[in-house]
Amino acid sequence: MTTALSPQQTITDITTLRALRDEAWASILQNAPWARFVMAGDYDRRFYGIYLTETFHYVKHNPKHQALVAVQATGQLWSYYRFCYEHAQEETGHEMMAFNDLINLGLTSDSVTLPPPHPATEVFIGYLYRVSTEGNPLRRLGYSFWAEDSYGYIGNLMKKITQQLALEARHTTFLVSHANIDEKHAEDVDKAIVQNCKKPDDWASLAEVMQTSLRLQSAMLDAVLEEYQALKANASDRYRFLNGGADT
Amino acid sequence: MTTALSPQQTITDITTLRALRDEAWASILQNAPWARFVMAGDYDRRFYGIYLTETFHYVKHNPKHQALVAVQATGQLWSYYRFCYEHAQEETGHEMMAFNDLINLGLTSDSVTLPPPHPATEVFIGYLYRVSTEGNPLRRLGYSFWAEDSYGYIGNLMKKITQQLALEARHTTFLVSHANIDEKHAEDVDKAIVQNCKKPDDWASLAEVMQTSLRLQSAMLDAVLEEYQALKANASDRYRFLNGGADT
Amino acid sequence: MTTALSPQQTITDITTLRALRDEAWASILQNAPWARFVMAGDYDRRFYGIYLTETFHYVKHNPKHQALVAVQATGQLWSYYRFCYEHAQEETGHEMMAFNDLINLGLTSDSVTLPPPHPATEVFIGYLYRVSTEGNPLRRLGYSFWAEDSYGYIGNLMKKITQQLALEARHTTFLVSHANIDEKHAEDVDKAIVQNCKKPDDWASLAEVMQTSLRLQSAMLDAVLEEYQALKANASDRYRFLNGGADT
Amino acid sequence: MTTALSPQQTITDITTLRALRDEAWASILQNAPWARFVMAGDYDRRFYGIYLTETFHYVKHNPKHQALVAVQATGQLWSYYRFCYEHAQEETGHEMMAFNDLINLGLTSDSVTLPPPHPATEVFIGYLYRVSTEGNPLRRLGYSFWAEDSYGYIGNLMKKITQQLALEARHTTFLVSHANIDEKHAEDVDKAIVQNCKKPDDWASLAEVMQTSLRLQSAMLDAVLEEYQALKANASDRYRFLNGGADT
Repeated sequence: MTTALSPQQTITDITTLRALRDEAWASILQNAPWARFVMAGDYDRRFYGIYLTETFHYVKHNPKHQALVAVQATGQLWSYYRFCYEHAQEETGHEMMAFNDLINLGLTSDSVTLPPPHPATEVFIGYLYRVSTEGNPLRRLGYSFWAEDSYGYIGNLMKKITQQLALEARHTTFLVSHANIDEKHAEDVDKAIVQNCKKPDDWASLAEVMQTSLRLQSAMLDAVLEEYQALKANASDRYRFLNGGADT
Repeated sequence: MTTALSPQQTITDITTLRALRDEAWASILQNAPWARFVMAGDYDRRFYGIYLTETFHYVKHNPKHQALVAVQATGQLWSYYRFCYEHAQEETGHEMMAFNDLINLGLTSDSVTLPPPHPATEVFIGYLYRVSTEGNPLRRLGYSFWAEDSYGYIGNLMKKITQQLALEARHTTFLVSHANIDEKHAEDVDKAIVQNCKKPDDWASLAEVMQTSLRLQSAMLDAVLEEYQALKANASDRYRFLNGGADT
Repeated sequence: MTTALSPQQTITDITTLRALRDEAWASILQNAPWARFVMAGDYDRRFYGIYLTETFHYVKHNPKHQALVAVQATGQLWSYYRFCYEHAQEETGHEMMAFNDLINLGLTSDSVTLPPPHPATEVFIGYLYRVSTEGNPLRRLGYSFWAEDSYGYIGNLMKKITQQLALEARHTTFLVSHANIDEKHAEDVDKAIVQNCKKPDDWASLAEVMQTSLRLQSAMLDAVLEEYQALKANASDRYRFLNGGADT
Repeated sequence: MTTALSPQQTITDITTLRALRDEAWASILQNAPWARFVMAGDYDRRFYGIYLTETFHYVKHNPKHQALVAVQATGQLWSYYRFCYEHAQEETGHEMMAFNDLINLGLTSDSVTLPPPHPATEVFIGYLYRVSTEGNPLRRLGYSFWAEDSYGYIGNLMKKITQQLALEARHTTFLVSHANIDEKHAEDVDKAIVQNCKKPDDWASLAEVMQTSLRLQSAMLDAVLEEYQALKANASDRYRFLNGGADT
């Protein structure tokens, strides 16, 4: 399920962590149904709309569980706690980028009531709260490590989807603008990892969270694909609100 | 991922819920790697030991998130809140059944420090906390609905594993004794569902949690299988503490 | 502020605890403005109405923080955790006794929107959440120790107020019926204390919570008195909703 | 208990809030036992040591409940949430100023285990968590409103205590350095109040929290005085660790 480290393989630096991240992304891009579907190019804007809906839901919680790391911590890692609060501040309201992108797609109006998070999204959110409030307080950095630095991995997917759906800047503020904001974040995250990870468990639990949270986001994206197919087949009502202006 | 209801299919009674449960279990028993592996019978006690370890971890949280449903609720469903607290009381300490079963296997001593929960177990736990503290407060009943009434579904698996590993009563208190305790619980759960579920969202969100939590437990069991194979192949250290008395 | 124990005086049994409780109550009954005011007898039903309003507010939280003791605990005091959940179950919905008593006073209708908790009530509630979620998990028993066994101390006050306001059974279900329910609870609490308190800190922190929570409830009752006087003097609007049928 | 507003008096601007703050401080400086005691000047460094101990305890929680305001909020006050996280970041670790000041007093060593928070401090902390997680999310600004801008009110007290105890800069970093840091904070707080308070309840609940939290801190300081007198009289062991180098 996760790329297991062999007993001999112990993580002790960020370079090994990067290699594991490369490996995890490579596996997803090659095998995940959603990734292959994106590159195959047979979809309309509702597919992207479902993605934005679920993204809105999980992104809303990012500052919350980020801050909870420091709220619940009992140790003395003050510079790390400051990182957590600062990062929470910077992530506040980012779900509105996804929401505005969704509205700008023209499939629905801004007075829409979105469906609640998909179960796959709730699983993702629930896991992030858990790693932020239990266990090694450094391990949530494993989520930030890929989430703030994903542009390099999904660049081709974004190019494809942008062409396919004739997307403009006002449809991709979450993915694109975010990429710029995240550049600074990614540096901060790397610095926080290097400064704070000292014990083997720090690295190991961080790597575990990196792999697991990336897998859960991929599962969320597979659910987006399934729901898109269900919507097209008229087999589910969950995202019917996106049928407004879709070329069905 | 979950068995989607068609737009036409709305749940309005416990009979439909039971049918969905049958369907979900049937799919797992037929397709899940762990279920097929159990029936194939090629394993030693360490496989069961890994299962008991992860079971210990997630069961410990059952009374906690069960009680949180009532703690966080703001409505006036008092009889339901009493059910939650009573159920929490009854589930308290049940993880020790799994722990004692594990010790009785003779693979390790009772002074063992167990490894932390597997990522697949953490995903399961995290989801259960989430459904217990957000959204429709009735939806956690979807977890209890299958968890307190699983004996009928897994009877054959338990028979097989008991034979295969020559298990006695003192190795199966969690699964077997629990089955008896759970009989009363299952009735209570059915009653709580029938008495409290009134709006379409009550039934729909409960069904969603039933399907999702059952799927996540199945994923945890698949991870148990993967870890058993990694342990046998000497490819992981996580459960090495079970190698003590195993007939490797 | 609290009755300090001298350095020589260490609590090691429930008898000493009872003596400290007697002492704390005696001081309140003799010195607290609210207690003297009750016995002086110069008030109408609005005074009791304000009391019931604030009681409704704090009682609503009793099962919640009671359960949180067990939810947040990391130890192995299973019989104590069961006590917590069972007690939470039994206290669920008791705030409705206070609410119904209030409505039965005839000062307002049952569709009334109560004012939010008074600051003195919030201080009381906030402290109870704190002792239930931090520090020695046994210390919340110090609150239960007086709260479930107060009838003996406030009997005269209740007699006076019942005569003064011509109260009937339907106006005093919280205070009177509760007294009967609490008789069993008080025994359970005593048993839980004796069975679980072992270390000096168990007894000391429990005694501290007993004294502090009793003091905070007394402060809440002083606030009830102040607010009654402000209401009579038309100096505050907070409880104006009680002016409906009052003999002003 | 709190300075009640008359029914005619409604707060609608920060000027009225300032007047209420002046009034609350004036009453404390004139009437609170601790304030009169400080000006009377009959104490040694242990009095200040007890103050620093309790200050260490409550200050540790400031960033935590500050962040929880935003974590628990469900509205769309993003700029306010950013303020909360930023403020949490800036307050992180400030308890160490109090701790270092305490160690620099020379009464104890830096390996000391401090006694747990005094009950009066726990009441203060518990209330701040409550106002940060329930009710109007803006109301915690009422705490910041006086806490970040107290230098003007306590200047004379600090001058007196500094002379009396021959304190140097390294003994007063919490109170003095903090004052400088807080100058910027105070401006930020004023801005946050003016920008966000719109409805009557925003102002009213903020004012209530200002008065109540200031009163609870004053009660904590009265407890510091009581404990100092108990320590001098050898009637309590709680702060005996401060007897090390004291001129007893």
